[in-house]
Amino acid sequence: MEEKILKEIRAMIPKERILLDLQERYSYSFDASFGEYLPDIVIQPNNAEEISQLIKLANRYLIPVYPRGAATSLSGGPLPVEGGMVLDMSCFKQKLIIDPENLLAIVSPGVITADIHKKAEEAGLFYPPDPSSAHVSTIGGNLLENSSGPKGLKYGTTKEYVIGLEVVTPTGEIIRTGGKTVKNVTGYDLTRLIVGSEGTLGIVTEAILRLIPKPQARRTLLAAFNRLVDSGHTITKILSSGILPAAMELMDNACIRAVENYQPCGLPVDAEALIIIEVDGHPIAVEEEIRKCEALCYEQGATSVRVAKDEAERLEIWNARKMVSPAITQMGPTKISEDATVPRSQIPAMMERLKQIREKYQLNLVVFGHAGDGNLHPNIITDKRNVEEMKRVEDAVSEIFETAVSLGGTLSGEHGIGTLKAPYMEMELGEIGLLMMKKIKQAWDPNNILNPGKIFPKPGQTKVVLT
Amino acid sequence: MEEKILKEIRAMIPKERILLDLQERYSYSFDASFGEYLPDIVIQPNNAEEISQLIKLANRYLIPVYPRGAATSLSGGPLPVEGGMVLDMSCFKQKLIIDPENLLAIVSPGVITADIHKKAEEAGLFYPPDPSSAHVSTIGGNLLENSSGPKGLKYGTTKEYVIGLEVVTPTGEIIRTGGKTVKNVTGYDLTRLIVGSEGTLGIVTEAILRLIPKPQARRTLLAAFNRLVDSGHTITKILSSGILPAAMELMDNACIRAVENYQPCGLPVDAEALIIIEVDGHPIAVEEEIRKCEALCYEQGATSVRVAKDEAERLEIWNARKMVSPAITQMGPTKISEDATVPRSQIPAMMERLKQIREKYQLNLVVFGHAGDGNLHPNIITDKRNVEEMKRVEDAVSEIFETAVSLGGTLSGEHGIGTLKAPYMEMELGEIGLLMMKKIKQAWDPNNILNPGKIFPKPGQTKVVLT
Repeated sequence: MEEKILKEIRAMIPKERILLDLQERYSYSFDASFGEYLPDIVIQPNNAEEISQLIKLANRYLIPVYPRGAATSLSGGPLPVEGGMVLDMSCFKQKLIIDPENLLAIVSPGVITADIHKKAEEAGLFYPPDPSSAHVSTIGGNLLENSSGPKGLKYGTTKEYVIGLEVVTPTGEIIRTGGKTVKNVTGYDLTRLIVGSEGTLGIVTEAILRLIPKPQARRTLLAAFNRLVDSGHTITKILSSGILPAAMELMDNACIRAVENYQPCGLPVDAEALIIIEVDGHPIAVEEEIRKCEALCYEQGATSVRVAKDEAERLEIWNARKMVSPAITQMGPTKISEDATVPRSQIPAMMERLKQIREKYQLNLVVFGHAGDGNLHPNIITDKRNVEEMKRVEDAVSEIFETAVSLGGTLSGEHGIGTLKAPYMEMELGEIGLLMMKKIKQAWDPNNILNPGKIFPKPGQTKVVLT
Repeated sequence: MEEKILKEIRAMIPKERILLDLQERYSYSFDASFGEYLPDIVIQPNNAEEISQLIKLANRYLIPVYPRGAATSLSGGPLPVEGGMVLDMSCFKQKLIIDPENLLAIVSPGVITADIHKKAEEAGLFYPPDPSSAHVSTIGGNLLENSSGPKGLKYGTTKEYVIGLEVVTPTGEIIRTGGKTVKNVTGYDLTRLIVGSEGTLGIVTEAILRLIPKPQARRTLLAAFNRLVDSGHTITKILSSGILPAAMELMDNACIRAVENYQPCGLPVDAEALIIIEVDGHPIAVEEEIRKCEALCYEQGATSVRVAKDEAERLEIWNARKMVSPAITQMGPTKISEDATVPRSQIPAMMERLKQIREKYQLNLVVFGHAGDGNLHPNIITDKRNVEEMKRVEDAVSEIFETAVSLGGTLSGEHGIGTLKAPYMEMELGEIGLLMMKKIKQAWDPNNILNPGKIFPKPGQTKVVLT
């Protein structure tokens, strides 16, 4: 980085929050996805004014800017693919205010999402979005990726809980969108445009989140099936019976085996599928609903159903689900995590197609996910140094995307497009659909400063860039 | 309209769906708000292809295009303020499909919203948004204005139930946004950008709506208070007790009297405020919650609380609320309906300020609204021919907007900006906030064809245009 530019940056930001050493920069070159890209400089801003000044400078010198939370992104969200400046937002975490009267939380972008859960619950309130990484990921990252976790079915996605933002625009202006009211139709909904924009349209410097009263009770069950298709029918039957569970999770046989290998917890390793169902609400309603779910599981052919008797047993069941990611990470050096999402009724078809893809390409493909909202997580365990296998991975990933879209679904339910899915955008959106998005990006970010290289494919780019 | 252009239109649309007579056009010159503007031509398209062709023609000849549903807009949404072409969408209503397996409805824009409610309930499902006009208004109009009604508190706004759209863009291209999955992060959320854009960014030609299982039971109460401030505290107490009612409605004394004058239904005409509370869910939970609400009302000073014993009594209570609009319409020839919305905790302060505004400007101002989500509806009954009074109305409306914003609220909770609130946009959003919206409009609609004259103020426009 030119000395002249550095001098300007040093006038804006205290020295200890500017990282230039190769070693320090190296630790900002990757995230939880794929690929390594070294930034030229890392800055740790802790207020909107600093970010505004940095973005204005970046526009003057045409420096790419990459905002980064805890870097748990599975789609390359924070990767500095064109070098430039990484903004490490994890130090910007001063504010975590619960406003019980208005059922709101007001938070800084670097706050850990699990801390919002905790503070809200202390006030008898509830923030439903709960990505698997919630205990380490920042709320800023969650918002920009719109990552939501298992409760989308009943409670909606992260977006449904963001009603106001303070944002630094791609040209460095500080604006406020939305506000403290659930209802707001004063002009276009910039809040929901920015949430899920993967840091390409603005950097969130404060968010106003909607909270709801904490459900009084919850009950959880784990059901095993010898045939995957039966688990799919169970999910449909439960929903059409008038029950809206807080979560419905699915694990396939490869997943069950991975967890049992990693940390034995008594899962039936011969089952073709496990589902976890959680209902919440009034204690009496919840008791009645979990028993109805149990009966429906057996009716649809479950070989065993275990209803958690107490909180300890409930946590045990969820632990099996939470072990999936660490368990499969142990299976090989490289993990490609997808999140193709299909209409709920297409889950059995999608599972069948994923099985065929696994066989066709001879890959270590495991599937789990949020079955209630059609959001599956096919994961391929591989080794990026194995060039021949990576070629097969690339083709398999292409086929997963094509299958999801052909079943009426989408490339990504919650991980985001980032770098890996960009070549497939046009397949889902069409040329004009993608162009309408690009027009917004160009109108807001004429110098293409904010998170360049994400969402939009490069001209002619038609394949995942794994090899 | 030039004969050459007419000839082209006649080649696109059958003659019987092109209206040119002055008398016919006149009936398209107004909506439920204020002002009359005669369009040059009215066309009744019934498919996306026709609309696409018309919009392309409008771009060639620079003709303003005004989409219109049932014209129940209270902010001037469909008013053809610059003449041109009105698209009457009410004939475009072929599709109303309920997909129970995926909990979805797929609808054409001209479908009446109440018909969606009915069809969904027949399948044991529920579409929560319920604007007062639902029995006549079209879903297309509801979506473009994001009008939501009383259930925003528990169930969120209309926007939360729209997951996919087919849209004709301002340059006449047909695109699809979102899809059939609740989770979708494939690029920017154009769905939520278009919902609430008041027809300035696209014309909806099909929508995919999310449904939820129908609540099994509901209970409703009506409570009277001698002091308005007590009703405000009651609302806060109920929410902080862990109950999330489906609706919490408020009526002030002027409102109660108006209803009793119009159609006597035994309301306490001396009460300073009435609140209606409805809870829904599991029958046992609902019974417990309504009793808790009743007790909390009395604790906070209610003079009477009536819990509906059965569905007939429930409908009687809601009838009092639904009579408000017709009742106040009888009070004078001109009704200015506002929907300033404040954070819930500011409702007592807002009500107090509205009382002061009524006295200061000596106007017939009545207040009712969705107290649970802070969405109040101050209505001024006046006569637009009374120039002196209209001047006072204008000043009072200004002061209502300023008050809402100063209390941390917004100009509009669900009626939209339209023509009347445009001059106040910058006050709430700031110059840059408004500019960011304008950049999207300009990027998408370079010829300013779609619904021009709405949302964005004219240069130098700083006042409501009532006089």
